[in-house]
Amino acid sequence: MDNRAAYTELEARFRRHGVLQGAAGLLGWDSQTMMPSGGADNRAEQSAALALVCHELLTDPAVSDLLDGAETNEAVALDDWQTANLAEMRRRWVHANALDGPLVEALTKATMASEMYWREARPANDFDGFAGHLETVLGLVREVAAAKAAALDCSPYDALLDEFEPHGKSADIDVLFARLTAFLPGFLGRVMEHQAGQPPILDPEGPFAVDDQRALGLRMMTAAGFDFDHGRLDVSDHPFTGGAPDDVRITTRYHEEDFTRSLMAVMHETGHAMYERGLPAEWRYQPIGESAGMSLHESQSLLLEMQACRSRAFIDFAAPLMRDAFGGSGPAWEADNLYRLYTRVTPGLIRVDADEVTYPAHIMLRYRLETALVADNLAVADLPGAWNDGMAELLGITPPDDRDGCLQDIHWAAGAFGYFPTYTMGALTAAQVYAAARQADGDIEVGLGRGDFTPLFRWLGTNIHGRGASLTPTALLTRATGKPLDAAVFEAHLEARYLAQG
Amino acid sequence: MDNRAAYTELEARFRRHGVLQGAAGLLGWDSQTMMPSGGADNRAEQSAALALVCHELLTDPAVSDLLDGAETNEAVALDDWQTANLAEMRRRWVHANALDGPLVEALTKATMASEMYWREARPANDFDGFAGHLETVLGLVREVAAAKAAALDCSPYDALLDEFEPHGKSADIDVLFARLTAFLPGFLGRVMEHQAGQPPILDPEGPFAVDDQRALGLRMMTAAGFDFDHGRLDVSDHPFTGGAPDDVRITTRYHEEDFTRSLMAVMHETGHAMYERGLPAEWRYQPIGESAGMSLHESQSLLLEMQACRSRAFIDFAAPLMRDAFGGSGPAWEADNLYRLYTRVTPGLIRVDADEVTYPAHIMLRYRLETALVADNLAVADLPGAWNDGMAELLGITPPDDRDGCLQDIHWAAGAFGYFPTYTMGALTAAQVYAAARQADGDIEVGLGRGDFTPLFRWLGTNIHGRGASLTPTALLTRATGKPLDAAVFEAHLEARYLAQG
Repeated sequence: MDNRAAYTELEARFRRHGVLQGAAGLLGWDSQTMMPSGGADNRAEQSAALALVCHELLTDPAVSDLLDGAETNEAVALDDWQTANLAEMRRRWVHANALDGPLVEALTKATMASEMYWREARPANDFDGFAGHLETVLGLVREVAAAKAAALDCSPYDALLDEFEPHGKSADIDVLFARLTAFLPGFLGRVMEHQAGQPPILDPEGPFAVDDQRALGLRMMTAAGFDFDHGRLDVSDHPFTGGAPDDVRITTRYHEEDFTRSLMAVMHETGHAMYERGLPAEWRYQPIGESAGMSLHESQSLLLEMQACRSRAFIDFAAPLMRDAFGGSGPAWEADNLYRLYTRVTPGLIRVDADEVTYPAHIMLRYRLETALVADNLAVADLPGAWNDGMAELLGITPPDDRDGCLQDIHWAAGAFGYFPTYTMGALTAAQVYAAARQADGDIEVGLGRGDFTPLFRWLGTNIHGRGASLTPTALLTRATGKPLDAAVFEAHLEARYLAQG
Repeated sequence: MDNRAAYTELEARFRRHGVLQGAAGLLGWDSQTMMPSGGADNRAEQSAALALVCHELLTDPAVSDLLDGAETNEAVALDDWQTANLAEMRRRWVHANALDGPLVEALTKATMASEMYWREARPANDFDGFAGHLETVLGLVREVAAAKAAALDCSPYDALLDEFEPHGKSADIDVLFARLTAFLPGFLGRVMEHQAGQPPILDPEGPFAVDDQRALGLRMMTAAGFDFDHGRLDVSDHPFTGGAPDDVRITTRYHEEDFTRSLMAVMHETGHAMYERGLPAEWRYQPIGESAGMSLHESQSLLLEMQACRSRAFIDFAAPLMRDAFGGSGPAWEADNLYRLYTRVTPGLIRVDADEVTYPAHIMLRYRLETALVADNLAVADLPGAWNDGMAELLGITPPDDRDGCLQDIHWAAGAFGYFPTYTMGALTAAQVYAAARQADGDIEVGLGRGDFTPLFRWLGTNIHGRGASLTPTALLTRATGKPLDAAVFEAHLEARYLAQG
């Protein structure tokens, strides 16, 4: 078999893998939106069985031989996309084959037990009870990290990061976060001072009927170009984007007393959805037909929510639609007020409620702590104290309890170490991509003022979405914006938005 | 490996198969309830990939060796349930291994194309265009039937029937249907005459809001004991029961001008759902943990809908609830009238709209035609004529076109030959089981008059549901009712209900 034939056979095998991953994704979506509570055990069985099938597809010894065969430089050469696809196949193969079956099974069981305990422990503020689960998970994660580090020839933490951010390096994150650490605290002080001199923010008075909120969300999704022949909007406890590129399922949750959060959450998930829909159809189900990683994915949600939809131009367009959706009247519904509301900065305890100025502090804290946990430089028992010290240092506030402190996120309970930094890398990427897009096409910002996202998504489709994972995140960003990830553009965005005289 | 060890390994493999079948079932449910239309190709890929995985699990050569090993009588014996489970494993293995890969793939592709064409052909009344698809499907089905007949040592039609009705024999169906053919036409005439002497039936006046219909359906499901922690009610074009025993998903459709059809459709699917929920939990995911076949399954839906919920006792209980659900008043809402409405007999063209008196004629026609098609005694081109002649003979009416004639059902387009007779076997089974249940426990009928289904489902749980597929359908029925399937009980039920002086 020549290298081309080996590659063709690999495409068939990875296609099957990709299709089954999509099926697993639909099961996951259902479990968070439709499944009755008593279906959880059954669903866990189904998801575990599908995960095992997918794992077996990648660890079949034939795949190893085919990869070796396809990577030889003899015979017919592959084109650039095929070469990139082959490299991505190899990266996934390394991840799958670094772990033996008992370790995978032990981690699956431990994270399921830990997540289940966490759901009770958080409301009960029970860190002591949870600590044993976390220690078990962390011990297994450190085994995974060691095995993958050997296979990928990198540090243990970078091996975990690579699952979410292909080719990501903590050395690069350290540089970005050091710069943000120098910039943000002082900047936050200036913003708070600036805000104090602004007119008071008026909250539109509710209640806001869920049906009306949903109709407004659908209206905005339509404006953004969401294709309802290939997607849906539903409700879940935690908003997310699931499904598959040809069937994108986004979710939100509604608060009857405040429509503004759900609306922006819908636009956030719509950003994720537009990325999925824009992935290259000719590479569907292949590794490079997927997104280029979690920081790119988060950049697309934050670009739509933070850069585009919280811009003054878009709020001017959207304010009358919001008012009409709920039959509102008075100064709370003026664009001036709604813009101030949507750019309000308030240091707080909870990451998912944070504004874009304080959000990076939440991430930098988690990054600091999780790298220490993985490196065995921090004991689980010392986590609450380290968390509270970090919050005091970075945001000047101390959580009154672990519920709103180190117990607030599910990530570590679920074994997802190496995920958190992609949120802030995504925010920086969003600023950088949006600045490049606006510079390349003047119609983008003009369009937003009319609720027309066509120019924006035309540019994103060509420069980001349509490229799939054919380039590494850094190469993709460099090609789209002229430079690798740089905190300067994000800082400039914050200064322009939050210190403007308005 | 002794036979016990081989059996244990088979349980592990069939468990995985059963779990993945459940995942495939959820994908199917989603495609009919939630999936946007543009997701169909993606879903077809997912379903085909999962079906292939399941097929490969059963055709793995190791399974053949394990079955041979477990079936030896040496070493440790298996208990009755394990022995039955092993027999059912072998039956499934025979079905899966009778077909080679190219035939399975050709049939999958042909039925997908044929179903897709049928969806357009039926409304367009385009039998000529559809005939080529049906010929292709039928040709492949006949290949399947021949291959399975050789493996199962039965006739080709019985080999197809065995997919839906394990161990079912057309010779037995012929006897039952001959008796019904002798009984029903004369009986129908007597019923029509009897009905002509009754007061006219008043249709409650709508429109009936979908939300109110849904609330009433949920109320009745709750009365029947449907467990919403383990199931849902949704909307689809054609009502069905999907999901899995611990997560049963039933559907209905609503007509704003008529609430009565949707309500009974909900009870019909609830009957299916209660069977799924009552399957033996300790055999979950094993072959004998599933239902005992389609006639038993249909018997449970028809028992709840036709035997229990269209009974005078239940209508007396339900009539005021119906009236209150829609704020109705007047004689149309009296139990007398609603009972006459729910037992109205009207010969018609459409199977799915048929009452229980005329329904068997629709089935006997399809059975006669499909056995002839499979035996190559009827050409596809002659189907419309044969259909119309049969309708005239059996029900005295002739379809004006193929849309409401031989194009009305999806079954043949989907390659499901051998399915139709299970509907009427289900109706006969329902009458026989319900009569035995009422005789065994006098509380059952008393309970229905109060909307209390507990005694009924207690008896069904013990005698039908909890036995899974541990017995053949005939053995199960004989054990529960004292005799194999017998049309006499069904006929007695019809006479008691439709010729009673009211």
